[in-house]
Amino acid sequence: MTQPQRQFSLGAFLMQTGHHIAGWRHPEAQADAGSNFRHYVDLARQAEAAKFDAIFLSDSSGIRNTHLPSLGRTARSDFFEPVTLLSALAAVTERIGLIATVSTSFHEPYNVARKFASLDQISGGRAGWNLVTSSGSTEAQNFNHDSLPEHAERYARAREFHDVVLGLWDSWREDSFPRDKRSGIYLDTDTLRVLNHRGEHFQVRGPLNVNRSPQGRPVVVQAGASEAGRDLAARTAEVIFVAHQTFEEARAFYADIKGRLPAHGRRPEDVRIMPGIFPVVGRTQAEAEEKFEQLQSLVDPVVGVALLSTVIGGVDLSGLDVDGPIPALPETNGPKSRQQLLVDLARRDRLSIRQLYLRIAGARGHQQVIGTPQTIADQLQQWFEEGGADGFNIMAPWFPGGLTDFIELVLPELRQRGLFRTEYQGRTLREHLGLARPS
Amino acid sequence: MTQPQRQFSLGAFLMQTGHHIAGWRHPEAQADAGSNFRHYVDLARQAEAAKFDAIFLSDSSGIRNTHLPSLGRTARSDFFEPVTLLSALAAVTERIGLIATVSTSFHEPYNVARKFASLDQISGGRAGWNLVTSSGSTEAQNFNHDSLPEHAERYARAREFHDVVLGLWDSWREDSFPRDKRSGIYLDTDTLRVLNHRGEHFQVRGPLNVNRSPQGRPVVVQAGASEAGRDLAARTAEVIFVAHQTFEEARAFYADIKGRLPAHGRRPEDVRIMPGIFPVVGRTQAEAEEKFEQLQSLVDPVVGVALLSTVIGGVDLSGLDVDGPIPALPETNGPKSRQQLLVDLARRDRLSIRQLYLRIAGARGHQQVIGTPQTIADQLQQWFEEGGADGFNIMAPWFPGGLTDFIELVLPELRQRGLFRTEYQGRTLREHLGLARPS
Repeated sequence: MTQPQRQFSLGAFLMQTGHHIAGWRHPEAQADAGSNFRHYVDLARQAEAAKFDAIFLSDSSGIRNTHLPSLGRTARSDFFEPVTLLSALAAVTERIGLIATVSTSFHEPYNVARKFASLDQISGGRAGWNLVTSSGSTEAQNFNHDSLPEHAERYARAREFHDVVLGLWDSWREDSFPRDKRSGIYLDTDTLRVLNHRGEHFQVRGPLNVNRSPQGRPVVVQAGASEAGRDLAARTAEVIFVAHQTFEEARAFYADIKGRLPAHGRRPEDVRIMPGIFPVVGRTQAEAEEKFEQLQSLVDPVVGVALLSTVIGGVDLSGLDVDGPIPALPETNGPKSRQQLLVDLARRDRLSIRQLYLRIAGARGHQQVIGTPQTIADQLQQWFEEGGADGFNIMAPWFPGGLTDFIELVLPELRQRGLFRTEYQGRTLREHLGLARPS
Repeated sequence: MTQPQRQFSLGAFLMQTGHHIAGWRHPEAQADAGSNFRHYVDLARQAEAAKFDAIFLSDSSGIRNTHLPSLGRTARSDFFEPVTLLSALAAVTERIGLIATVSTSFHEPYNVARKFASLDQISGGRAGWNLVTSSGSTEAQNFNHDSLPEHAERYARAREFHDVVLGLWDSWREDSFPRDKRSGIYLDTDTLRVLNHRGEHFQVRGPLNVNRSPQGRPVVVQAGASEAGRDLAARTAEVIFVAHQTFEEARAFYADIKGRLPAHGRRPEDVRIMPGIFPVVGRTQAEAEEKFEQLQSLVDPVVGVALLSTVIGGVDLSGLDVDGPIPALPETNGPKSRQQLLVDLARRDRLSIRQLYLRIAGARGHQQVIGTPQTIADQLQQWFEEGGADGFNIMAPWFPGGLTDFIELVLPELRQRGLFRTEYQGRTLREHLGLARPS
C-alpha cells in the first residue's frame, strides 16, 4: 500500500473521568479527575507524546443535572474552568494544541479575546477557542436570567461576539512592538488598530491589551449542527466538532458544510471537520465487547433512567420497572427528532427501559466503535477517504486507560497505513491542522 | 538582638518590565516581558526560592493611556490576562501564593468564582483574588458603556459581587465527594448548598461546578483606600495592598482599618495590611542613588509630561519647556487632593516640569526607598513594629534585576533580624499569611 498524501487530524477530547457515563466506576479510572490537576498533566503529556493535534475541553457554566439522585451518582459536578486548566497545561507541554470551550451567552467578548490571546502567548501559538452558545436554563440561572434567550437570539449574539473577538485579535501587527531601548520607542502606534465596534449586542472600543497571536490568531472551533449552527460555522469556523451516528450522516454533513463555504469566500481546506468517535478497543473483537460490557454493567439504573427520561423529552420513567417496556408516550409534533427515533427503535426492537438507556449511556450521540485496531482503523479510513471527515475527536470511555488503549493499539495501525503523523512538523495548532495563517 | 516572634509577609508585585515607568529601557531589563511567558516563569521561581508569600498581578481590562505619543513610549500596552498567567505559573511552582486582580465592574461573579476556584485546585490552595472596581472610562468602553458607573454604584456592585462569589465557594463541603465506586455514590447531595442569590445586581442560583478550595476558600485581597474602599475592606478583605508615602500615613491607615474590624465581628489578625514598597538597593547609599538616577535619566520627556498632565487633572503641559516652571493652574474644589498637594510642592520647592514628573515616575504613590540593605531593613522594621504594616508588597523598579537586588541584598538582612522566614512552614497561601481557615 502506498502512503496517502493526506493525513488526518486527531483531537483528544478530555472529560474528567471519561465519556461513558459510568466511566468513573471503572476499577482503574481516576475517580477524582475533575479536581485532580496531575491527572490532566499526565493525559496531556500522553496525548502530546502520541502527536495528537490538540486536547479539547468542553464546558458548562453550571451543573446541568438538577435531578439529585442521578447527580449524586455521576461524575459531572466538579471540573476545572477550561481556559484556566489549559493555561496550566500549556506550561508543562511543548507542542500539542489546546482547545477550550467558552460560551458566547454569558461572557463578554473583550474578556474572551484576552483569555485566548493570553493562552496563545503562553503556549507559543497553540490556543483554540470552541465558540458555543449555552443550551440549558440551569446555566442561565447563574447569570441573572430565569431561562435562556431564544435560539435565534443566541446565534445572533454569537455571530457578533465572534466578529468582535476577531477584531480585537487584529488590534496589533507582528511588527507593532519594536521595543527599542535607545530611541525609547516601545510601540509603533501607527500600526495600532482601534476596533470601535458598535453593534446590536456589543459596543467595544479596543484595542486588545495583549500582543498579536504567535499563530496569527487563535483557531476558531465550533460544534453547532442546527441550521443556524451550520450557517455560523460555514462563515466563521476553522474546525468543526460534530456528532454523527452513521457514515451517511457524516458524509451529508461534510458535503453540506464544504458546499456552503464558497458563498463566504472560503475554500474547502479552510475548515477541518472532525466528528467525535467513542472507541472501545480490544486485541480481539471479543475483548473489545467484554470491555464495553464491563462499563455498561456499571451504569446505575437511577442514572440510566434519569438520562433516558431527559432524552425522550422530560417524561419521568423513574417509577417503572427498568426491565419492562417503554410506556406509551405522547407523539412529538413536527419532524421526527432523534428522541422520537429512539422511542421508535425501542418499540421495534422491543427494548426494555434498561436496554434503551444502555444504548445512549456511552457516546452521547457520537459514533461508538467497538472493535480491534484493524476494524476501528478501517472505519476511520473510510470516513476520511470517502468524504466524511478531515479528522476525529477521540472520546475515550474512561481515563486514563481508554485513551491509552487508543494510543497503544489503534495509532500504530493508523501510522502503518500512513493516515496519521509520526512526528509534529509545525509548532502551532494552526500548523498541526494545516490551516493557513490569517494575513 | 533576640528573634521577634512575629514575622512579616512579603508579596512580589510583578508588572511586566517593572514599576518604574522607564524600567523597560534599563539595559538589562526584559523589554518584551509583557508577552514573554518564560520571563514570568523565571521571576515566579526566583520569588518562590526566596520564600515570598505570593506573587501579585494587577490588571486593567483595556489600555488606559489614550495619549498616543506617550503610549508609544511606555511598556503598558501588552500584558497577560492575570488569572491565565497565574494558572500557567501554578504548574511550574510548588509553594508560592498566586494573587490576581479581577475587576467586579465588567465580569460576572459565577465566572470569577469558577476561575479562582479552578486556580486554587490547580495550585493546591495557593490562589488569591484581588477584588477591585474599575476606574477608567477606557475600560468601560470595552464593555458596552461610554463611561464608568458612579463610584458608589461600583462599590455597591462590588459588595454584592463579593458575597455571591463567597457563597458559590461555599457550595461544597470538604467531604462532599466520596466517589465510592462500589456503591456508585460519587457525590453526597445532602451536603450540597444551592446559593439561590437574588439581589439588586445579581441573580445567581449556583451551585459552583468546582470542588471546594484546598485552603477552604481562596484569599480575598483588596486595595481601596477611599471611604467606601475602607468600609468594604474592613468587612471583606483578608489582605489589603495599599499605597503610602509616609510612615504617619501608614500608621493612621493601619489603625483605622484594624479599628473598623470589630464592628464586622472580625479580629485584627483576620486582615493583613501590606503597603507597597518601591526599593532601589545599593551596597552603599551612593550606589543606590546612582541606580535610581540611571532609571530617572531614561524617562522620555514625552512620557513624563503626559504622566504629569494626567496626575494634575488633565491639564495639557505638552507645549511647555520641560525645564521651566509649572504654570498657574485652576484651583481644585473641595478638599485638597494628592494632585493639588503635588502642585503646591512644586511651587514651594520651585520645581521644573521635569523635576516634578521625575518625582512621580517611579513608585506611583507608593513609598520609594533608595538605600542600603540596612537602611531599607530599618524602615521596613519600623513600619512593621510600630503599627504601620503586617507585611509589604515589593514593587521592583525593573525586572528581573530590581527583584534580584531585593532578594540578594535586602532579604539576608531581614532574615538576620528574624523579620522574614527562611523556609515555608505551610503549603497554602492562607497558611503563609497566617490567616485562619474559614469554617
